[in-house]
Amino acid sequence: MIRDREKTMACVYSMSTFLAIISILTLANAVKYEPNWKSLDSRPLPSWYDSSKIGIFLHWGVFSVPAFDGAWFWFYWRTQKAKKYVDFMKKNYPPNFTYADFAKNFRAEFYDPDEWANIFSASGARYVVLVSKHHEGFTLWPSKYSWNWNAKDVGPNRDLVGDLATAVRKKSLHFGMYHSLFEFYNPLYLQDKANHFKTQTFVENKAMPELYEIVNKYKPEVIWSDGDWEAKDTYWNSTNFLAWLYNESPVKDTVVTNDRWGSNTRCKHGGFWNCNDRFNPGKIIAHKWENCMTVDKQAWAYRRDVDLNDFYTIEELLGVLAETISCGGNLLLNVGPTADGRIVPIFEERLRQMGKWLEVNGEAIYDSKPWFKPQDNVTESTWYTTKSDGKSKTVYAIVLNWPKESANGYILSLGLPQPTTGTTVKMLGYENYFNYKPLQGGGINIDFPVIPFKKLPTTWAWVLKIEGLKNA
Amino acid sequence: MIRDREKTMACVYSMSTFLAIISILTLANAVKYEPNWKSLDSRPLPSWYDSSKIGIFLHWGVFSVPAFDGAWFWFYWRTQKAKKYVDFMKKNYPPNFTYADFAKNFRAEFYDPDEWANIFSASGARYVVLVSKHHEGFTLWPSKYSWNWNAKDVGPNRDLVGDLATAVRKKSLHFGMYHSLFEFYNPLYLQDKANHFKTQTFVENKAMPELYEIVNKYKPEVIWSDGDWEAKDTYWNSTNFLAWLYNESPVKDTVVTNDRWGSNTRCKHGGFWNCNDRFNPGKIIAHKWENCMTVDKQAWAYRRDVDLNDFYTIEELLGVLAETISCGGNLLLNVGPTADGRIVPIFEERLRQMGKWLEVNGEAIYDSKPWFKPQDNVTESTWYTTKSDGKSKTVYAIVLNWPKESANGYILSLGLPQPTTGTTVKMLGYENYFNYKPLQGGGINIDFPVIPFKKLPTTWAWVLKIEGLKNA
Amino acid sequence: MIRDREKTMACVYSMSTFLAIISILTLANAVKYEPNWKSLDSRPLPSWYDSSKIGIFLHWGVFSVPAFDGAWFWFYWRTQKAKKYVDFMKKNYPPNFTYADFAKNFRAEFYDPDEWANIFSASGARYVVLVSKHHEGFTLWPSKYSWNWNAKDVGPNRDLVGDLATAVRKKSLHFGMYHSLFEFYNPLYLQDKANHFKTQTFVENKAMPELYEIVNKYKPEVIWSDGDWEAKDTYWNSTNFLAWLYNESPVKDTVVTNDRWGSNTRCKHGGFWNCNDRFNPGKIIAHKWENCMTVDKQAWAYRRDVDLNDFYTIEELLGVLAETISCGGNLLLNVGPTADGRIVPIFEERLRQMGKWLEVNGEAIYDSKPWFKPQDNVTESTWYTTKSDGKSKTVYAIVLNWPKESANGYILSLGLPQPTTGTTVKMLGYENYFNYKPLQGGGINIDFPVIPFKKLPTTWAWVLKIEGLKNA
Amino acid sequence: MIRDREKTMACVYSMSTFLAIISILTLANAVKYEPNWKSLDSRPLPSWYDSSKIGIFLHWGVFSVPAFDGAWFWFYWRTQKAKKYVDFMKKNYPPNFTYADFAKNFRAEFYDPDEWANIFSASGARYVVLVSKHHEGFTLWPSKYSWNWNAKDVGPNRDLVGDLATAVRKKSLHFGMYHSLFEFYNPLYLQDKANHFKTQTFVENKAMPELYEIVNKYKPEVIWSDGDWEAKDTYWNSTNFLAWLYNESPVKDTVVTNDRWGSNTRCKHGGFWNCNDRFNPGKIIAHKWENCMTVDKQAWAYRRDVDLNDFYTIEELLGVLAETISCGGNLLLNVGPTADGRIVPIFEERLRQMGKWLEVNGEAIYDSKPWFKPQDNVTESTWYTTKSDGKSKTVYAIVLNWPKESANGYILSLGLPQPTTGTTVKMLGYENYFNYKPLQGGGINIDFPVIPFKKLPTTWAWVLKIEGLKNA
Repeated sequence: MIRDREKTMACVYSMSTFLAIISILTLANAVKYEPNWKSLDSRPLPSWYDSSKIGIFLHWGVFSVPAFDGAWFWFYWRTQKAKKYVDFMKKNYPPNFTYADFAKNFRAEFYDPDEWANIFSASGARYVVLVSKHHEGFTLWPSKYSWNWNAKDVGPNRDLVGDLATAVRKKSLHFGMYHSLFEFYNPLYLQDKANHFKTQTFVENKAMPELYEIVNKYKPEVIWSDGDWEAKDTYWNSTNFLAWLYNESPVKDTVVTNDRWGSNTRCKHGGFWNCNDRFNPGKIIAHKWENCMTVDKQAWAYRRDVDLNDFYTIEELLGVLAETISCGGNLLLNVGPTADGRIVPIFEERLRQMGKWLEVNGEAIYDSKPWFKPQDNVTESTWYTTKSDGKSKTVYAIVLNWPKESANGYILSLGLPQPTTGTTVKMLGYENYFNYKPLQGGGINIDFPVIPFKKLPTTWAWVLKIEGLKNA
Repeated sequence: MIRDREKTMACVYSMSTFLAIISILTLANAVKYEPNWKSLDSRPLPSWYDSSKIGIFLHWGVFSVPAFDGAWFWFYWRTQKAKKYVDFMKKNYPPNFTYADFAKNFRAEFYDPDEWANIFSASGARYVVLVSKHHEGFTLWPSKYSWNWNAKDVGPNRDLVGDLATAVRKKSLHFGMYHSLFEFYNPLYLQDKANHFKTQTFVENKAMPELYEIVNKYKPEVIWSDGDWEAKDTYWNSTNFLAWLYNESPVKDTVVTNDRWGSNTRCKHGGFWNCNDRFNPGKIIAHKWENCMTVDKQAWAYRRDVDLNDFYTIEELLGVLAETISCGGNLLLNVGPTADGRIVPIFEERLRQMGKWLEVNGEAIYDSKPWFKPQDNVTESTWYTTKSDGKSKTVYAIVLNWPKESANGYILSLGLPQPTTGTTVKMLGYENYFNYKPLQGGGINIDFPVIPFKKLPTTWAWVLKIEGLKNA
Repeated sequence: MIRDREKTMACVYSMSTFLAIISILTLANAVKYEPNWKSLDSRPLPSWYDSSKIGIFLHWGVFSVPAFDGAWFWFYWRTQKAKKYVDFMKKNYPPNFTYADFAKNFRAEFYDPDEWANIFSASGARYVVLVSKHHEGFTLWPSKYSWNWNAKDVGPNRDLVGDLATAVRKKSLHFGMYHSLFEFYNPLYLQDKANHFKTQTFVENKAMPELYEIVNKYKPEVIWSDGDWEAKDTYWNSTNFLAWLYNESPVKDTVVTNDRWGSNTRCKHGGFWNCNDRFNPGKIIAHKWENCMTVDKQAWAYRRDVDLNDFYTIEELLGVLAETISCGGNLLLNVGPTADGRIVPIFEERLRQMGKWLEVNGEAIYDSKPWFKPQDNVTESTWYTTKSDGKSKTVYAIVLNWPKESANGYILSLGLPQPTTGTTVKMLGYENYFNYKPLQGGGINIDFPVIPFKKLPTTWAWVLKIEGLKNA
Repeated sequence: MIRDREKTMACVYSMSTFLAIISILTLANAVKYEPNWKSLDSRPLPSWYDSSKIGIFLHWGVFSVPAFDGAWFWFYWRTQKAKKYVDFMKKNYPPNFTYADFAKNFRAEFYDPDEWANIFSASGARYVVLVSKHHEGFTLWPSKYSWNWNAKDVGPNRDLVGDLATAVRKKSLHFGMYHSLFEFYNPLYLQDKANHFKTQTFVENKAMPELYEIVNKYKPEVIWSDGDWEAKDTYWNSTNFLAWLYNESPVKDTVVTNDRWGSNTRCKHGGFWNCNDRFNPGKIIAHKWENCMTVDKQAWAYRRDVDLNDFYTIEELLGVLAETISCGGNLLLNVGPTADGRIVPIFEERLRQMGKWLEVNGEAIYDSKPWFKPQDNVTESTWYTTKSDGKSKTVYAIVLNWPKESANGYILSLGLPQPTTGTTVKMLGYENYFNYKPLQGGGINIDFPVIPFKKLPTTWAWVLKIEGLKNA
């Protein structure tokens, strides 16, 4: 079963690649981007990204060693001196233990990138974004610019990035890299900051050389920038990098980037927009955007003391997925690997559950577009996507809550779809058409039959495929 | 919701305690057990045990530090020299690293016994059996007889046993202790073994003093003996211990024990029978027995490299539960805590799923008895329990598979129940009675209605409560 | 040079062995010792011991890991809660770090017993006493009675005792073992103590089995008992052990023991007497005794924070040696190896300096006897030994301080030697006879010539060989 | 005694400082050095340096953690793959252990800079040169340019440099810093090297910023450069740094540097010359030079497995000192502190022995100049220094070997000194004049009296103060 799905995915992928190549051939010599936002923003987003809809985000680093309360451990301990962190250190480490002392115990001894890629592929995600360097500055690849503070020189003794890139691509997933521009305590950065960002020592010697290094070395198709917020794009020299990335880099035709390139760029410039973490606007945004969020509701990094109720249920996750896709976003779903290199089973379970749901309902997600409105106005737990084959348009209604019982049975009242006589309604994964009636004052009442338990395509959320609508 | 359930459980518990006290008062001075099996086997099993049906088993120890492949790590590495283990050690440790060197890194820094007890209580289990000392010989309590090889002296620096006993009892669960008689490499044991068990140095200086120590100190209501198989009960001096336990110990009236008291006792003597690990005979056993098995199908101890598919699904677990209870057994469900003291979320999830199912269906489990046959002869995935209120008897059919569709709908054909005209059939958690017809040649055809999704009491397994049967 | 010396020593050793064998043959079947002091004390001390005069004492154990302030680290930290120790732990370890947690870092990775034996041999010592188990209870051999609290099971993963025994014997040195009867925190001991030593669980299960084990396994020629002081010999069962040791053990003919066999035995019963640590009475004791003392004046164990001025100078050491031998004692000179298995150079230097001095002056030390008084009454920094060849007696005066200048030159005035006309005085290692005059009122004035620097046999202490005395 | 000596030293120091100030006032505005060797070489060496004669060199770093075979551990292990190193790692560490993993165990828990300074002061040394960064690149100060690869961020969690600078200055010693230009495995360096040193990324971002940082922060009076040999001065940008150092830096008036500023500068340009390690030419060199050598003959760094015979005896050390000073050099004597921050006793002993000798004989060393020849031509174990009070000149003959006995006593025959009738000869520390006779054919026969042992000023080497020579 999985095997078939993979074939299908490979086809879909090949086709989108083919289309991407076509568009590239057309545009290739035509455009030379200038290092300014007007020009850079004019670049069309490579189409694979919007088609893919779902990515996996991975926060892994030295913070995975204490694995306590998240990726900002260092900051909360050292700068905020938050009691929780200070107490944790007092209880478990000698007084003069440093953050960098943790690195030695980052060993990744069970790291099996192929197994990771299997899980990601099974989740239905189509791209993977690895935190290659978080605010702690530790690079998961053997960076020339982070000697003895990278995963080859201390701890794992391995190029964690390269090995994952290879494994992920074997599964026909796109490989992307998160990169934090700033580093909490890099003295060169702190110096520039003390100089009110009038010097750029850090950018010239660290941030930028690294970005060029990873693009040239790993050819990521996503550069997921972060850590930009304390200084403007002009400090970071972002536009020059992006001009190079779009004009000359080895991934110039397929790479996508986000919008975190300076305190003045978020939700304004760059490639797709991330705006804030967990951005989920609840309305259609004209510009392509992405909702990055976490399966562990509290943290981006693995937490050893996490409880079950800290994790989203699959029902909640599908709700976020529906809302995000319906509003035109991509979903970047974060899981935190352990210091010994594992995606723990509860993460694997949520990912596989999502993949199982997508096997039935992926038709409403991949390659879809938002409908004219994302959310029904009568039953607000129903979200829409749409697809067109050129001639006609199909509307997909993602139903998060099974309708409640009424005198007439289980009737889902939707305000937005305007049925015609040729309208048909089916549930993805279920064989029979659903009955419906026009709703007075516009809309449609869909009659959910009492489906025998064995025939329910899923028990978490359901997709209605509606064809022949007046207002498709 | 949980709160109500806890109240109910507390009531149930109080009542069973009350009954236990009554029976004790009756019997108390009457019996003095002799240190022989005839006498010891004549002791009635304290009733709380059979009523409870479900326990939680916890394998925790120094093996939780490598957390690789299970609790027998030491043996497979050192004696078997199994390639997998030898390679693991070669890859990750210096050549002269010893097993005892692991102990220092057993730190239990996140150990919160109250949180554990919460999870166990929520699972619907009514007793907890902690591995207080496995074959490695490391005691989780500060034993007088295991100096510097116990959890107070090395590693956690804490009485792991005492703290759990307190927490578990606060939740009105019974507290039990697993204890391995033999120890893989204890030189005193190896010496006795070399002497063909004609000497008892190990028993006199280690095994027995420890057993007395834990009974006196922690008053466990289960002594779950193990590690007996290489020598007879006479070597272990088991009968003397049991006579003391039943006659004089502080838990003489409520304690239960199992059958692992010598190579000649298993499935024959002692309290309830464990026979083999994962004993699940598929038929009713006249003597009270217990099926100890693991949520991680492969291992008793926590494994860092475990995959999702190594865990039983909740559907599979409920199948094992049904089969076990129907055949007169108790289910002792094992989870492996981590070296840092956590029940990881995937374990917590399975336990809470079981608890959720038992909230609806516990009526068919707790305090139940096997019916005359455990398993239906027509639909073999259906298992029976029964209860009597003195006057009439109720039969519970645990239906693991929803019936398949036929021309007549979804009909469950059961061969064993012989309906009368007064027979009623209900699904626990669902409001309406089910229709049925007698089956030709005996038995009953039960018509499963097409229950609206929202009204399904559970999606994993279902219990039919059948009253008024001819052969109840 | 060293080579020649070794030959000589081998000869000396062979001869003393030969004599020992003779005495054994004579006595062998004659005596059967009873387990009471009267009988045990009647055993003649095997002659090799008094002849040898100088031994090396080695304090090595888990305390060598913190290597802070000595072998009683555990006690001062845990029981005394001495600020220095508590602060050290607070500064350098997590709060719940235990003493047993240190053991893993006892690795002995540079331990080369042959190199140790070379140094000991070069020091002029003729026996070596290894602390095989100190009060911490950690055995340096793989004891059956100290599972996982010994150097094979944790830390070094090696039989430290056996390897040293072999190496030391290759150098023709006698091998002895220190053994502490009590253990600070052994719960069996603490229990016996709480029982006012009316129970003997600890002795029966630990102390005695261990002693028999080491005698049978390593055949030590010294059993250097310690840790006896809290209980009487009857608690320790000492006399039974000694009767076995003297009558039946594999070392019954050559073994020597000391006097620490119970709170009532010290300086009274047993073999040679140690009385107190650093016992140095300054007068002749009729019973053979031993002065155990340390090269690091402050500690028995290696201290990482030791300073140069904590070490005895060679001049001071030779003073202690002279005083000890003159009063009939043996000198047991302690050095503390490191956790990684090294005798650090400052210890090596002192030992080799002593050896160099003994190459010249050993004649006055080995096989010597005290003179009628140990110390001169006029020049108190001069100490005497004596030797007899059957016919005549030689007196050796060990001169710690070169005489002061006077009008007549450098005159050493000694009150005790009564010269005759045939008296001769020579300095060992110097060719010419010294002039002297009788001292008025008894005694002798010895004229120290102005010896050319190049002809000084040593610059630390000098031995005068005086023959033909009236009162030799 | 030490106290008095310190006062004297303070006086000497104050006076030399005063003279330095005078010379500075004179020169101050006069000279502006150009960044070329002609100009830089024209700078007079600040006078304190030649006057001081003796410095202490300290090799401390991450290599002090394995403490195996020296400061080049990383190179011999990783690049040379020398068997000894590879075996050491195999035996003691897991296979994927990295060099940087050692850093965490560099803890310096016993580091007491005041105690170090006491020892250095007592040794008679007048300056201290700390390896602030060796070829491994790890900085002992919290460098902005070596984030997480410095002693504040990993391991000691302390500014090891600053604390020593303060302590050393409290003792009126000059503080200097060793700094390696190249770093074995710094990727920026390796890149420049691969580019045949046509790029200077490493120099611009690492080597030079660091040098400016330490000069500004710690104001060292010695910049002891090293690691220059693979590239020319033009790659290192040495002349620009030195021009700044001499013209503008906070130590411009007192700082001295050596000659290791490029593959083309050694023994040619810079301040004093080191030429090769352990440079000891045996003849007078016109340019001021320094002999850096080690008390442990085999290694610059502390070695845990060092033996006593690896250390120079004090006699040997004084021989090297005499030879070095007589030829116009300074002696920079290296000791290797331990990872826990100790100068071990054998080092302390050698240093204090040297200090004790200098208390008597320092007059011949400090502020001395070479005589016209350094070494006698008749008795080659005698070395000369000289001093002038403006009017007359004193010649000091450092006699390493006490003369041999002859028919006429102990006669030291020296070929170079030409006595007059007014010539006097005394031994420093001894009261009486020595007799002498002119030697036929030129030279002098000095009659060593038979000095009573108690009056020997030292037993290691002796200094003759010769005044009134014809050829002084």
